[in-house]
Amino acid sequence: MDQAALKQEISNSYGSPCVVIDLDKVEANIAKLQGQCDAAGVKNRPHVKTHKSPELARMQISAGASGITCQKLGEAEVMVDGGLDNILISYNLLGQEKMERLAALSKRANIAVVADNPVVLEALSSAGAMAGQPINVLVECDTGQKRAGVETAGEAVSLAKQIGASADLSFKGLMFYPPVDGWPVTQSFFDEAKAGIADAGLSAEIVSTGGTPNLVNLGQLDGATEHRSGTSIFNDRMMMACGAATLDECALQVYATVVSRAGPERGILDSGSKTLTSDPGGLDGFGYILEYPDARIKGFSEEHGFLDLSSSGAKPEVGEIVRVVPNHVCVVVNMVDRLVTLRGGRIVGELPVAARGRIS
Amino acid sequence: MDQAALKQEISNSYGSPCVVIDLDKVEANIAKLQGQCDAAGVKNRPHVKTHKSPELARMQISAGASGITCQKLGEAEVMVDGGLDNILISYNLLGQEKMERLAALSKRANIAVVADNPVVLEALSSAGAMAGQPINVLVECDTGQKRAGVETAGEAVSLAKQIGASADLSFKGLMFYPPVDGWPVTQSFFDEAKAGIADAGLSAEIVSTGGTPNLVNLGQLDGATEHRSGTSIFNDRMMMACGAATLDECALQVYATVVSRAGPERGILDSGSKTLTSDPGGLDGFGYILEYPDARIKGFSEEHGFLDLSSSGAKPEVGEIVRVVPNHVCVVVNMVDRLVTLRGGRIVGELPVAARGRIS
Repeated sequence: MDQAALKQEISNSYGSPCVVIDLDKVEANIAKLQGQCDAAGVKNRPHVKTHKSPELARMQISAGASGITCQKLGEAEVMVDGGLDNILISYNLLGQEKMERLAALSKRANIAVVADNPVVLEALSSAGAMAGQPINVLVECDTGQKRAGVETAGEAVSLAKQIGASADLSFKGLMFYPPVDGWPVTQSFFDEAKAGIADAGLSAEIVSTGGTPNLVNLGQLDGATEHRSGTSIFNDRMMMACGAATLDECALQVYATVVSRAGPERGILDSGSKTLTSDPGGLDGFGYILEYPDARIKGFSEEHGFLDLSSSGAKPEVGEIVRVVPNHVCVVVNMVDRLVTLRGGRIVGELPVAARGRIS
Repeated sequence: MDQAALKQEISNSYGSPCVVIDLDKVEANIAKLQGQCDAAGVKNRPHVKTHKSPELARMQISAGASGITCQKLGEAEVMVDGGLDNILISYNLLGQEKMERLAALSKRANIAVVADNPVVLEALSSAGAMAGQPINVLVECDTGQKRAGVETAGEAVSLAKQIGASADLSFKGLMFYPPVDGWPVTQSFFDEAKAGIADAGLSAEIVSTGGTPNLVNLGQLDGATEHRSGTSIFNDRMMMACGAATLDECALQVYATVVSRAGPERGILDSGSKTLTSDPGGLDGFGYILEYPDARIKGFSEEHGFLDLSSSGAKPEVGEIVRVVPNHVCVVVNMVDRLVTLRGGRIVGELPVAARGRIS
C-alpha cells in the first residue's frame, strides 16, 4: 500500500490525529537493544514507561530481556496483571496506600524497588512486614543527574547497611542513571560503594545502569550487571538529536491533519499539547514532519499545532495528512488509550496503552 | 478536618499524586462566570475542554449556561451521551470518519461547528447530506491570535455566503477568540463582516467570544451574543498571573509527595511531566506549592518534579504531602481518569474525566 493510501485508511478508520506504531520497526528496535546488551555482557531490563503495554513488554522478554523496569507502582501492577515478572520499580515509594499495594504485588511476582533515603526504607520495611517476606531494595545512586539518588558512596553504603540490618528488607544492589559523560565518575562511585558494601558483609547482585542515550556507553562500567532503556523501542526526535537513533528507527508517528492555512506562511495541525505534549526535549520546535521537514511546529494550543511554513518551500494544503515524529515519544504514548499498529506497511490492529495514566 | 488530616486521608485512600477538586470552589467559580455573563448581557457557553466531565457541564447548565463548547468532536460525543445539548464544536473538522460521526451526532443534539476555509465547508456539506439536515456553521475569525480563523472580514463574508448557498449547511454566525488587548480590532472586524453578511441577506444569530482572561472585556464587543470560558471553572497559576483569578479561586490542586531530598537545596516531587505536564503557560516554574510558596518547581522528568528549595526558608521533609496549583489546569485534568472531589473540606467522591484523551 502506498503512503497516501495508508494515511487515508488510517484517517478513515481511526480519525485524526492518530498515534501509530510500525511493529516491524518496533521488533527491529527490540532486537537491536537486546544485541547491544548482549554484546556488552549486561542483562537487558527495558523500561516500560515508554510503551506502557504488557504485550510489548512480553515481546521484549521473548527477545531476551531478563525483566522489566517500571517507574510507578501502578505500571508494575498492570504488568504483573499482564503476566510479566522480575520487575524493578525504579522509584522511591512512600505512603501507607502504596505499601499495602507493594506488599500485595510482592507476593504475586519478583519485585524490586529502590530507595535513596531512610524514610523510604522505613516505609518499605512496613511493606515487608505486611507481606511476610522481605522487600528487595536497590540503593539509587546519583552521579550527576541531580534527580533522585544519594550523592555519595558513603551514603549508599549507609543505606545498604540499613537494608541489610532489616529483616523486612533484602539488599539487592545499586541503581545508577549516569549522565552520558558521567561514566568515569560512576565507576569511581561504584568502586568505593562496592568496597564499603563488601566490608559490611553484603554484595550487590544487581548493578543497574539506565538511559537510551547511554547505550553508547554500555560495557563502560566494570561491575554493571544490567541496563534499563525505555525510549529505544520507539525512538523519537530527541534520540535522533543525540545520535541514538536514525529517522528510519523511529517507530512511532502521529498522523495529523492540516486543518487551517489561514495565513500564507502558517498552518494549523489538529494536534496540540494534548497529543504531542509541550515537552520540548531540549529541541527547537515540537516534532519532525516527514512530508515537510523544513516546516517548524513552533508551539501549541491544547488542540492546535502551530506550523511555521516560512522556511518550507512546499507547503501543505488544508486536509492534507502528515506524519509527525514527536520530540519525546514516552509522553505522547501516555496521552492516548490505544496505539494503531502497522506491519508490512498495512494496518494490523490496535494496542491498548494499558498502563496509561498510572501516575500513582 | 484539618489540612494535615485531609492530606493523609487522600494519600491513604487514593495514593499520591492525586488530582483533587474542591466542589465548593467549583460551584462558586461557575456562579461567578454566570454572573459575569449575565451582567454583560451575553449568554454563557462554557468550554468543557477544561473539565471534560458531563457532570460538571450539567452543573454549568443548571447555573444558567445556555449551552457548552467542545474543542473536539470526541468531547461532544461524550457530552451528548451525558445528556448535554446545544453544543458548539469550536474547531475545523475534516475527514470522512469525522463527517460520519458529525452527521450522526447532529441528529441526536443541537450541534454547531466552525470553519475558516472552503475545504472544511465542503466536508461539512457532505456531513449535512449524510445527516439529511443542514449542519450549523459559524465562521471562525482571527483578530490577532494567529491560530485558526480567517484574517479579514472579507473572507468571513465570503465563507458566510458559501454556507448560505449550500442546502446542506446553515449559517449561524461568527466565532472570535480575541487577544485580551484586541477587542477594538475585533469590533471593527465584526462591524465590517456584519455589514457584508447583511448585504448577502444573512445574519449572525451567534456572535461568540472566548477566553477566561477575556472576562474583563465582557460587554466590550457590541453585537456579541455569548462567551466561551473554560479555565474559570478551576482556575490555575496562569489565571492568577493574568489577574483573572485569586489563589482562593483555584479549585484544583495536585496533592503530591516529596519523595527525595538528596541535596540540601533540592528535592523531588512524585509528580512530573506525566502529571503536571511540561506546559509552562508562559510562567517561570511549573506550579505553585501552597505550603512552600518560595519553592520553585524548576523542571520535570516524566515522574519527577525537580524542586529548587534555595529560596525557600522552610524546606519539606521526605514523605511530606504538598498541594500544587498547576500552571495550566486544562492539560493536567487531561492526564488523569478521575478527579477526587471535596466538599466542606472533606472527601466526597470521585468524578470521571469522561472525555479525557478524546483527541479526535
